[in-house]
Amino acid sequence: MDFTRNLYGTSLSLLTDLYQLTMAYGYWKTGRAEQQAVFHLYFRKNPFEGGYAVCAGLEYAVHFLQNLKFSDNDIEYLTSLRNAKGDELFDLDFIEYLRNLHFTCHVEAIPEGTVVFPNEPLIRVSGPLLQAQLVETPLLNLVNFQTLIATKAARITEAAQGDLVMEFGMRRAQGVDGSLSATRAAFIGGVQATSNVMAGELFGIPVKGTHAHSWVMTFASEEESFEKYAEAFPHDSVFLVDTFDTLEGVRNAIKVARKMRENGSELSAIRLDSGDLAYLSIEARKLLDEAGFPAVNIVASNDLDENLIASLKQQGAKINTWGIGTQLVTAYDQPALGGVYKLGALKDEKGNWQYKLKLSEQLIKTSTPGVQQVRRFLDGNGKFVADMIYNEAENLPENMKIVHPLDITKQKPIAPETPFEDLLQPVFKNGELVYRLPTLPEIQQRTQSQLQSLDPSIRRFLNPHPYPVGLEANLHQLKTDLILKFRNLK
Amino acid sequence: MDFTRNLYGTSLSLLTDLYQLTMAYGYWKTGRAEQQAVFHLYFRKNPFEGGYAVCAGLEYAVHFLQNLKFSDNDIEYLTSLRNAKGDELFDLDFIEYLRNLHFTCHVEAIPEGTVVFPNEPLIRVSGPLLQAQLVETPLLNLVNFQTLIATKAARITEAAQGDLVMEFGMRRAQGVDGSLSATRAAFIGGVQATSNVMAGELFGIPVKGTHAHSWVMTFASEEESFEKYAEAFPHDSVFLVDTFDTLEGVRNAIKVARKMRENGSELSAIRLDSGDLAYLSIEARKLLDEAGFPAVNIVASNDLDENLIASLKQQGAKINTWGIGTQLVTAYDQPALGGVYKLGALKDEKGNWQYKLKLSEQLIKTSTPGVQQVRRFLDGNGKFVADMIYNEAENLPENMKIVHPLDITKQKPIAPETPFEDLLQPVFKNGELVYRLPTLPEIQQRTQSQLQSLDPSIRRFLNPHPYPVGLEANLHQLKTDLILKFRNLK
Repeated sequence: MDFTRNLYGTSLSLLTDLYQLTMAYGYWKTGRAEQQAVFHLYFRKNPFEGGYAVCAGLEYAVHFLQNLKFSDNDIEYLTSLRNAKGDELFDLDFIEYLRNLHFTCHVEAIPEGTVVFPNEPLIRVSGPLLQAQLVETPLLNLVNFQTLIATKAARITEAAQGDLVMEFGMRRAQGVDGSLSATRAAFIGGVQATSNVMAGELFGIPVKGTHAHSWVMTFASEEESFEKYAEAFPHDSVFLVDTFDTLEGVRNAIKVARKMRENGSELSAIRLDSGDLAYLSIEARKLLDEAGFPAVNIVASNDLDENLIASLKQQGAKINTWGIGTQLVTAYDQPALGGVYKLGALKDEKGNWQYKLKLSEQLIKTSTPGVQQVRRFLDGNGKFVADMIYNEAENLPENMKIVHPLDITKQKPIAPETPFEDLLQPVFKNGELVYRLPTLPEIQQRTQSQLQSLDPSIRRFLNPHPYPVGLEANLHQLKTDLILKFRNLK
Repeated sequence: MDFTRNLYGTSLSLLTDLYQLTMAYGYWKTGRAEQQAVFHLYFRKNPFEGGYAVCAGLEYAVHFLQNLKFSDNDIEYLTSLRNAKGDELFDLDFIEYLRNLHFTCHVEAIPEGTVVFPNEPLIRVSGPLLQAQLVETPLLNLVNFQTLIATKAARITEAAQGDLVMEFGMRRAQGVDGSLSATRAAFIGGVQATSNVMAGELFGIPVKGTHAHSWVMTFASEEESFEKYAEAFPHDSVFLVDTFDTLEGVRNAIKVARKMRENGSELSAIRLDSGDLAYLSIEARKLLDEAGFPAVNIVASNDLDENLIASLKQQGAKINTWGIGTQLVTAYDQPALGGVYKLGALKDEKGNWQYKLKLSEQLIKTSTPGVQQVRRFLDGNGKFVADMIYNEAENLPENMKIVHPLDITKQKPIAPETPFEDLLQPVFKNGELVYRLPTLPEIQQRTQSQLQSLDPSIRRFLNPHPYPVGLEANLHQLKTDLILKFRNLK
C-alpha cells in the first residue's frame, strides 16, 4: 500500500531544502542538469554509542520517489518566489523544465531491516545530476529518522530478552509523522505492538491498550473502575494500579480478578506506571501469585529505555511486558542520526567517471569517492565477518584487502572463496520501480535474523566490539590519492 | 488555510492511543459517554532548564478538532479489531455511536505565541466525557512538540541578539511532519526564514537557500563554481567556502565578488559550515573588509544551538547570520516536552462539579482539580508580575493570594486593583469554532512582545529566575483537602 499517498493529500515534491532547487537551477543554467552523477547516503557514527544500526525508511523513500512530480500548486509557488531585487528567482523556462520533470534515476538500496555500519551507503542514487541532487533532503529526512528509531527499538527489545515490548509514545512524539513513522520503525526494530491506532490502520501493526488514570478517577472507587472495565473487556483487561496507591491498587485488581474468574474470564495484566518499578513489581507478583493469579502479566511503563530495562532485569524485577514511549519514539538520548548524502562521481563527456570527494580537516568527515557497493563476508555459519565498501565501476583485485577508513595500518585480507552478499539491491531502474517492497512483518523478521548473525559482543550496549568495516584497498588508494591531490601534495 | 486538511489526505481521527477508544467504549457502556467533564493540558517543568516556554500548536489542534469525524475506513478498521478470544473488540452499537460522533465540546486555549509556565492549562476541554477523553493523545502530540520547538527557537533567537536566524533542519528532523511543524514552530519562536520549501508553500514562511558542497564538487575549481552560481543568482549569492580550505574559499569568493561588482551586482554572503567558527569568521571578516566587501554577510552553520551562539558572540565571532538545523528542529538537548492531560472535574446528576485529581508519591505529579483558568497580573508598564491558576467554577475571594504549588510557605498577596488578563480564550463553543486563528506573523509578533514583557532574569539560560506561578489560595486548599481525603487523613 502506498501509505504516503494515502496519508498526504498533497504533493511532497517541495519537501526539500531551497538550495536543492537553486542548485538545480544552476545545473540547468550551466547545461549540466542531465550530466550523470552518483550520490551516496550514509552515516558516519553508530547511534547511541552502539555497535550497529538497523536501516529503515526505504519504503517511505520509494513512495516519495514514485510520486516525485511538481503539482500545479508547487509550480505556482515556485513561480511566486522573488530574489533580493524583487525579480523572479527562477527563469520561467526552468520552471517549465520542473513541470515536466519525472524521476529517471537508478536507485540501489540496502533492504530495510538490514544491520548496517558507518560509511556504508544505505542508498545510492545515480542519474541526471539535477534529479539526483534534488532528492537529497527528503531521502535524508525519511531514512535518518526511521533508521534511528529502528536501531533504538532493536536495543530495547534486546534488553527485554524476549518479553513483549509495546510502543506507547504518540503523545510525546515529534508531530504526526514523528509518531506514525516512529511506530513503523519501532516495529521493524522488534517492537511487537503499539498504542497508535492510526499506525494499526495504516501499517497493520497490532494495537494494544489499557486505560488511563482518568478512567479510574471518573468512578467513586478504584475497585469499581476495574470492575466496569472488566465488564467492557472481559478478555483483554489490563488494570492501571497506581492512580492512588500502587499496592492497594494491586489488591483491588485481585478482588476484581476473582469476580472475573467467577464469571469465566481471566485478568490479563496489571500495569505499573510510577514509583520503584523493581520493588513494586516484585511485591505485586507476590500478591498476585499468593492470590492464585500467577498468569496475570505485569506491564511497566514510565520513561523506560534499554538501560533502565536492563537494570530492572538485573534487580530481579517481575515485569514481563514493557510499554515504551518517549525514549523510543524520540530516541531521547540521541534524537537525530547524522546521515549525509555526498557526490561520489560525475561522468565526463567521454563517459568516464570522474571521482569526487568533499575534503574536511577531519578524515572522518571526508567523503569517499566512487560508485559504491557494500560486500558483506560471512563465515561458514552465515555469521557476519566483515563488510567491504568497494567501487563497482572498477574490477575487484583477486586478493582483496579491507582497509580501515581512518587507520591505514588496520588491514584485513579476504580469502578468495569467502562467501558474501552485496547489500545494495536495485530499487529503481531509469525511474521505474524494480523492487518488491517486503511486508512489514518480513522486514521485522529480517531484522531479527540479521541481529542473530552479529556477534553478541557487537550488540553489547557498553563499549561494543567494533564490527570490521573498511574500504577495499584500491578504493582506499583512490581516496588517499584524491585527498593528496586536492591538498597539492601529489 | 486548513493546512492539515491539505497536507493529510486521510482522516486523522484514529491518531490516538487505543486506550482512548477502549475507555470511550467503557464510558459508553457504563452510560456515561455524555457526562460533562473538564480536562486540562499542561506541562510540569520548563524545557531546557529554562525559565519559560512559548506555547504553540493550537492551529494544528483546531484543524484536528474541526475534522474529527470517523471515516468509513476508520470505522471498517475499528470493526476489524478483535479481542484475545477472537471476538469483536467493540460492540457494533458502539461503532455506530462513533460513526455518528461529531465534536461538541467547549475548548478554551492560550493563544499561540504566549509565554507560559509549568502547571498552567494551555488547553481546557469541557464537554461529554467520551469526546473530551478521546482527543487527549492528538492534542498532546500536536501541542507538546510545537511548544517545545517554539521555546527552543525563542532561546536561539535571544542568543543571536537580533541577527538573522534561519532554520535548516529538515534532513535530520523526525519525519515529514517533524520537519514541517518544527519549521512552523521555529518561526513562531522568532526564526525569520527556513530552507524548507514546503513550509514556505504551506505556511508562507520566507525561504532561503545557498548551495551545498556538492555544487562546488561538480566543477573543476571552487572559483568556477562560485562564478557559475553568481551567474544564476546575481543578487542572492551565498558562497559555501569550506569545501576544500575555508580561508582559500573566502579568497575565491572575493575574486568572484569583484567580478560580480564589475557586472553590477553584490555578493550577499559567505557561509562557514565547519572548523573553528570564531577564528574563521574573524579572519574571513578581515579578508572581506580589506578587499572592500564590508557588506558581505557571514553565515555560520554546523550543529549550532543557543549556547554555542552565545559562546561565539562572546569570543567576538564575526557571524551575523545563523543557520540552525538539528539542534533546533529536534530540540536535541531535550527532544520531548512532558505535557500531560488530566481530568479536573466531572459533573454529577445534579449539575454540580465533582473535583478530581490524580495522586502521586511526588507532589509535582499530583494533578490539580477544578475548572482552571490562568490570570496573569501586570505592572504599570505591562510587564508580567505573576500568574495565578484559579477555579473558574467558584467565585474569587476579594483578597486574592497566590500559593506556590509545591511550597505552601511561598505565598503572594495580590492587590485588588492589579491589572490582569485571563489567558485561556474561547476557541470552540459546543464544537463550533468561535476563535479567529491569528496569522503566523501575528503569532510571531506576539511571541516577541510577550518575551519583552518578561524580566530578562527569567529569560536567562543559566539558572533563570523563577517566574511566580501559583494556585489561587482557595484552589490550593481544595487540592490539599482532596489529597488528604484520598489518603484518608481527613
